[in-house]
Amino acid sequence: MSTQALLPVSERLAFYRRAANYIAVAMIYLQDNHLLEEPLKPEHIKHRLLGHWGTVPGINLVYAGLNRLILDTDASVLLVTGPGHGAPANLANLWIDGCLEDVKPEMSRDREGLGRLVRLFSWPGGFPSHIAPIVPGTIHEGGELGYALATAFGAALDNPELIVACIVGDGEAETGPTAGAWHSNKFLDPATCGAVLPILHLNGYKIANPTIFNSMSDAELTKLFEGYGWHPLLVQGEDLDGALAGALDTAYGEIRALQQAARGGSRPERPIWPMLILRSPKGWTGIRELDGVRVEGTSKSHQVPAMQARTKPEHLRALEEWLRSYGPDELFDDSGGPAAEIAAMCPTGDRRMGANPHVNGGRMRVALKLPGLEDHAVALEQPGASTDSSLGAVGKYLAQVFELNREQRNFRVVCPDEVASNRLGALFDVEDHAYEWPVDPQISPDYKPGGRIMEVLSEHNCQGWLQGYVLTGRHGIFPCYEAFIPIVDGMVNQYGKFLKMSREEAPWREPVSSLNYLLTSEGWRQDHNGYSHQMPGFINSMLNRREEHARVYVPPDANTLLATMEHCLQATGCINLIIGSKLPLPQWLSMEQAQEHVRAGASAWEWASNDDDGLPDLVLASCGTIPTIELLAAASLLKDDVPELKVRFVNVTNLFALAAPGNHPDAMSAGQFGELFTEGRPVIFNFHGYPSAVHQLIHRRPRQERFHVRGYAEEGTTTTPFDLLAMNGVDRFQLAIEALSRVDVGVSEFVRGMSGEFAVRNISGAQEAISKYREQLAEHRQYVREHGDDPPEITSWAWSGSRA
Amino acid sequence: MSTQALLPVSERLAFYRRAANYIAVAMIYLQDNHLLEEPLKPEHIKHRLLGHWGTVPGINLVYAGLNRLILDTDASVLLVTGPGHGAPANLANLWIDGCLEDVKPEMSRDREGLGRLVRLFSWPGGFPSHIAPIVPGTIHEGGELGYALATAFGAALDNPELIVACIVGDGEAETGPTAGAWHSNKFLDPATCGAVLPILHLNGYKIANPTIFNSMSDAELTKLFEGYGWHPLLVQGEDLDGALAGALDTAYGEIRALQQAARGGSRPERPIWPMLILRSPKGWTGIRELDGVRVEGTSKSHQVPAMQARTKPEHLRALEEWLRSYGPDELFDDSGGPAAEIAAMCPTGDRRMGANPHVNGGRMRVALKLPGLEDHAVALEQPGASTDSSLGAVGKYLAQVFELNREQRNFRVVCPDEVASNRLGALFDVEDHAYEWPVDPQISPDYKPGGRIMEVLSEHNCQGWLQGYVLTGRHGIFPCYEAFIPIVDGMVNQYGKFLKMSREEAPWREPVSSLNYLLTSEGWRQDHNGYSHQMPGFINSMLNRREEHARVYVPPDANTLLATMEHCLQATGCINLIIGSKLPLPQWLSMEQAQEHVRAGASAWEWASNDDDGLPDLVLASCGTIPTIELLAAASLLKDDVPELKVRFVNVTNLFALAAPGNHPDAMSAGQFGELFTEGRPVIFNFHGYPSAVHQLIHRRPRQERFHVRGYAEEGTTTTPFDLLAMNGVDRFQLAIEALSRVDVGVSEFVRGMSGEFAVRNISGAQEAISKYREQLAEHRQYVREHGDDPPEITSWAWSGSRA
Repeated sequence: MSTQALLPVSERLAFYRRAANYIAVAMIYLQDNHLLEEPLKPEHIKHRLLGHWGTVPGINLVYAGLNRLILDTDASVLLVTGPGHGAPANLANLWIDGCLEDVKPEMSRDREGLGRLVRLFSWPGGFPSHIAPIVPGTIHEGGELGYALATAFGAALDNPELIVACIVGDGEAETGPTAGAWHSNKFLDPATCGAVLPILHLNGYKIANPTIFNSMSDAELTKLFEGYGWHPLLVQGEDLDGALAGALDTAYGEIRALQQAARGGSRPERPIWPMLILRSPKGWTGIRELDGVRVEGTSKSHQVPAMQARTKPEHLRALEEWLRSYGPDELFDDSGGPAAEIAAMCPTGDRRMGANPHVNGGRMRVALKLPGLEDHAVALEQPGASTDSSLGAVGKYLAQVFELNREQRNFRVVCPDEVASNRLGALFDVEDHAYEWPVDPQISPDYKPGGRIMEVLSEHNCQGWLQGYVLTGRHGIFPCYEAFIPIVDGMVNQYGKFLKMSREEAPWREPVSSLNYLLTSEGWRQDHNGYSHQMPGFINSMLNRREEHARVYVPPDANTLLATMEHCLQATGCINLIIGSKLPLPQWLSMEQAQEHVRAGASAWEWASNDDDGLPDLVLASCGTIPTIELLAAASLLKDDVPELKVRFVNVTNLFALAAPGNHPDAMSAGQFGELFTEGRPVIFNFHGYPSAVHQLIHRRPRQERFHVRGYAEEGTTTTPFDLLAMNGVDRFQLAIEALSRVDVGVSEFVRGMSGEFAVRNISGAQEAISKYREQLAEHRQYVREHGDDPPEITSWAWSGSRA
Repeated sequence: MSTQALLPVSERLAFYRRAANYIAVAMIYLQDNHLLEEPLKPEHIKHRLLGHWGTVPGINLVYAGLNRLILDTDASVLLVTGPGHGAPANLANLWIDGCLEDVKPEMSRDREGLGRLVRLFSWPGGFPSHIAPIVPGTIHEGGELGYALATAFGAALDNPELIVACIVGDGEAETGPTAGAWHSNKFLDPATCGAVLPILHLNGYKIANPTIFNSMSDAELTKLFEGYGWHPLLVQGEDLDGALAGALDTAYGEIRALQQAARGGSRPERPIWPMLILRSPKGWTGIRELDGVRVEGTSKSHQVPAMQARTKPEHLRALEEWLRSYGPDELFDDSGGPAAEIAAMCPTGDRRMGANPHVNGGRMRVALKLPGLEDHAVALEQPGASTDSSLGAVGKYLAQVFELNREQRNFRVVCPDEVASNRLGALFDVEDHAYEWPVDPQISPDYKPGGRIMEVLSEHNCQGWLQGYVLTGRHGIFPCYEAFIPIVDGMVNQYGKFLKMSREEAPWREPVSSLNYLLTSEGWRQDHNGYSHQMPGFINSMLNRREEHARVYVPPDANTLLATMEHCLQATGCINLIIGSKLPLPQWLSMEQAQEHVRAGASAWEWASNDDDGLPDLVLASCGTIPTIELLAAASLLKDDVPELKVRFVNVTNLFALAAPGNHPDAMSAGQFGELFTEGRPVIFNFHGYPSAVHQLIHRRPRQERFHVRGYAEEGTTTTPFDLLAMNGVDRFQLAIEALSRVDVGVSEFVRGMSGEFAVRNISGAQEAISKYREQLAEHRQYVREHGDDPPEITSWAWSGSRA
């Protein structure tokens, strides 16, 4: 046993921290002489000093403390580091314990390896200054603050032996998503799930300003977190290593006691978990004062103190003094690797936080057992002959997913209180709501500790939980109101970046399950709501994401939705946006046809076309449930009134099938596209979302001007569906008028101008039909305003079932 | 004095609530017989029963209680109603007190007026079931939950006499944005601002499930809000009217005491404001039980109980009993207006909450006094000859805005802790940070109660505060990291809908100031950050919004930014997105040129063109600061190496200038567009954001295929700017290669295929130049990886200043 091992724990921890801090500082500043083997010179300093020192010493304090706890208890601990810009700290610890070397052998634990790490930090092709998927141990993109805590809970769910430590910075703590995530404790079951150990780290300052939490008194902080239902343990004072060790031991004891009680059958009414509130100075152990200004303990420590180290001698001197204050001579062995006493402070193998098996979720992932689609198919005698709720059907399917994977416990549904209202109620036949605090069992009989349906009126919590769950190798679905999913637009942006970087720069990460959104209560049928609940813009956001992982599905009926769901639950590495309707609506495809439709992405529906496999006068194309019904109704009108017109009916269920070849893996080839949409005939495209989404996608498709896209035009108020459709111009009458106007050379208003070039021939009866449709449109709108409901011709309309 | 007036206050309040509840229920169900003058029959029931009963009785309880407080104290009270679907409650009260009649005379306080209101609720062309701008007294769109509390704080700022009561539902309370907004108390100055009185309304259930807050014990709730720094007053029990009256009196007393102390010079260290926690049963006074299921006090009350009232006799009977339980005979006078005793429970004139003058912010608005642009112009000798920080310049301009409007106190800056880092530090020369809790005055000397720069690491709070401030007639700017503004994408969606509905359906609302975003720390220069901080998608979101209020400005230099800022601070009713760079960059336009450029939206820069006013071989168009620099550098390369090539240089500062005519008020006419971009020559468009934004906008512009848009391609990591530009293909070398390839018929790879049609002629030296640029690109990227910085040719590059 070395002399170090005989020292009190505080001193050993402080010694370890000297190494971690030294390496982190070297990373921020040095491109050479990283062991300070010669006096520091300007040319040793990087040209561009980019990084964030301020949060580093606090993360190192916690990292060292958790390592000590793991060594003492052999606990399985995963660390979620909220202060996103603390990457130098995490990387320093991961170099010391060898996790970095495991995934990047060139980052070896010797002079050369450390030199590479130091140089490649904040360097082109190297490590960014924030936590990112290329940092081992990471399940959380550290750029946009606010999501660490919810992500930590997602990782702890259904991992009963795991402790997820989560550092929440006092900057991040100001965000709404974090403020709401503290309530996640009420969803975590001590019997079947692991623990989350939050460490609220108060270093007092953000980029430029003091933090709210640091301005709160100890009494306020204690009350706040007790009110949230936690047991807060304050860690502060002179001996932070010792105080932290004590608090961690207490917390660990409380966690294990709670778990043992719950697992032994004596669950407390409210499981009160411990959490730590740690006060340490910003930039602790850094430069005290420079240029007459206080640095340590202020926001001046936030990024890079002594910024002019390359050009100003006094900055260079301050930096050298700072680095030497850690005693680099004692920190490394002869080969330039970590000194034995320092390496001994780290766990080994899978017990290292950076190597915790749950972090590489793709490797832990067990594929879901999925029900046979044939068991859930909606029967179809004739297209449109019967109605069914697509969401109702998928609810039964997902219920069976729960049943088939009950033993594995690797599937969850997260939702902002809309499972039942979105007709997924079948889920409650087989699974309960997760909830730990007492609720009235008479009124809410399906609320049980250990349930796996998580409903909370916080899209941020849903998203964070699901990210943590999926990134640790499990599966889930997020059903949400279509209009409100933009609430998590920022989170999904960052998650997309995490996937992109994982795929391209962290080959050791195996693919995780896809993140599945099931958007429903779609804008076109907002019965109890109105204009504020109409918002299809998340589709447009998906178009900004990388093609490798972005998918948008708009299945037209229940069987297509079921086949799409099966596909999405099997696919890895994607963000799947599935848009479906909860209302009973006509069904169009048999399961076999639906599966073929999903494979193709877009297909012609022969039973709704009358082009007799020849060249049609125009193409009617739909994408979405209600837009498909209206366009079929328009096709029906045209068939009756203008039988001479040859129409091909196309449905698009995979929006990215429209993308130009090379722009997306699901893009149709030029040949397929031309075969479906013809090479030059007009296309009336009736779309679920904003027309701009289609405009973007068909950019660079030949003669894209012939596509006339109808969709949501931000016109809406309290309306019946017909009225809403008419306001936006996607109703059957306006579509039929549009179709005739695009084709008939006799309809003068469209012949003029650019669009006229598509008018193909004289269609007899076109003018009369247009007049008739205009009248019907006006009459129907009048009816709606008088009766407060759609006219019977609309409500009782059904597809005739016969091919023209 | 009537006998009513002699009753105890609880009984009088209960009597008033009977009327408000009755009217609200009638609105949800009835299309006829609204005073129940005959027995209720199926034909009296609406065809579509759409609405939300559950939250109504609680809102009516609070509305009655606040009316009583106003009558007793003559306070100026504005109400923000968080439970968005409670519109029937608000409308009932607004009909009783005549606010509705004031803006919609047909909603008169008599039998006919009430009949119209009852029928038009949740009716095509009528009122939606959620709070919306057509409801008098509203400054908050009630669709997407989470923003009521922050909005209430925005309204209270700089309105010292105003009390903003804010009902927060226990559903909304679960959202992250609300959880974070409770900390707004730390920014509200009792001396110079009004008060916010939050009323957390626990009715226990959301759409389908119990709420978190209702599962918390009284002790937990008390601790939580004391921890947040509030004084919580619990209101519960049998006599809710009486308990609420007592609590409101207590709260009012505490508010006035706090204000008097602060205004009298004895400000407490932490101003602890009162807030109410009110427990009342969901659907209180509604149907107890139906079809053997409990309704009152459960989530079964959430929307429409007795949903089959039109078809099921027992539902109709239950509804009639319910309605008659309120005793409609006593509630109305002979004309069908509110009984005198009920009307007497309401304040009158401006004291009615629905008529509080601050609610119609456009009428209260005082235009800002703006500095002369000439005083802030950046001097320009030659284009590109000097560098300046655009944000630095605008910071000095905005500082003077603070000074010029100091007396009016009607301008604020909200920001997620980035004012200083975004080089707006000049603001602190003239204005302080708003903050009320103690901070270290040595470290943070510019933190003062009463300051008007509000920094918090919560984009949600910034957005909510600013919305409340602007909608009550004031002005503000929201500087934000470009990458993180999508955090509030959902809020801005809803704000856009509020503006659209205000403009089209609430003509009595006068236009408010525009909401101004100043996005900076833009993706192309993320020195301390990386891939996670690169995200221009908010531009795409703006393109989804209504053209009447969406504006996107991408000024290329300081003078153009200043002229844009002046325009935005004057414009009303818009959402202005301004993107600017904080870094010192070359300046291109004099103030006079900049003003002309802002007026035009897009202009040709003759000094950077060599088309000699003739038809160029191609157009180089830029939009954005860094993209402009790179494209000018490309133009410079081409000028030197391929002098024969005739190039026109265009800059777009108003993105919507590109939109097709008729699609946006700022769209260039076809003639202007053709004159600028030629009718058919290739255009290399170097864009700040995702290319898809430009693709959408130029859709339907003639021959749009000739536009070759370069922009952010989701390629990024830790890079120097040149490397980042090169990864995304917007660097000078790739742009120059692209330009030559599009024009020279000798460059074979682009001649094939669709694009080839634009190759116009043989350009001598094109092949050689392309080879040279490819080499330089490779060399520069190599240099970056070796040195961790841009090569000197890049860092020291400057526009030559001479016209070719």
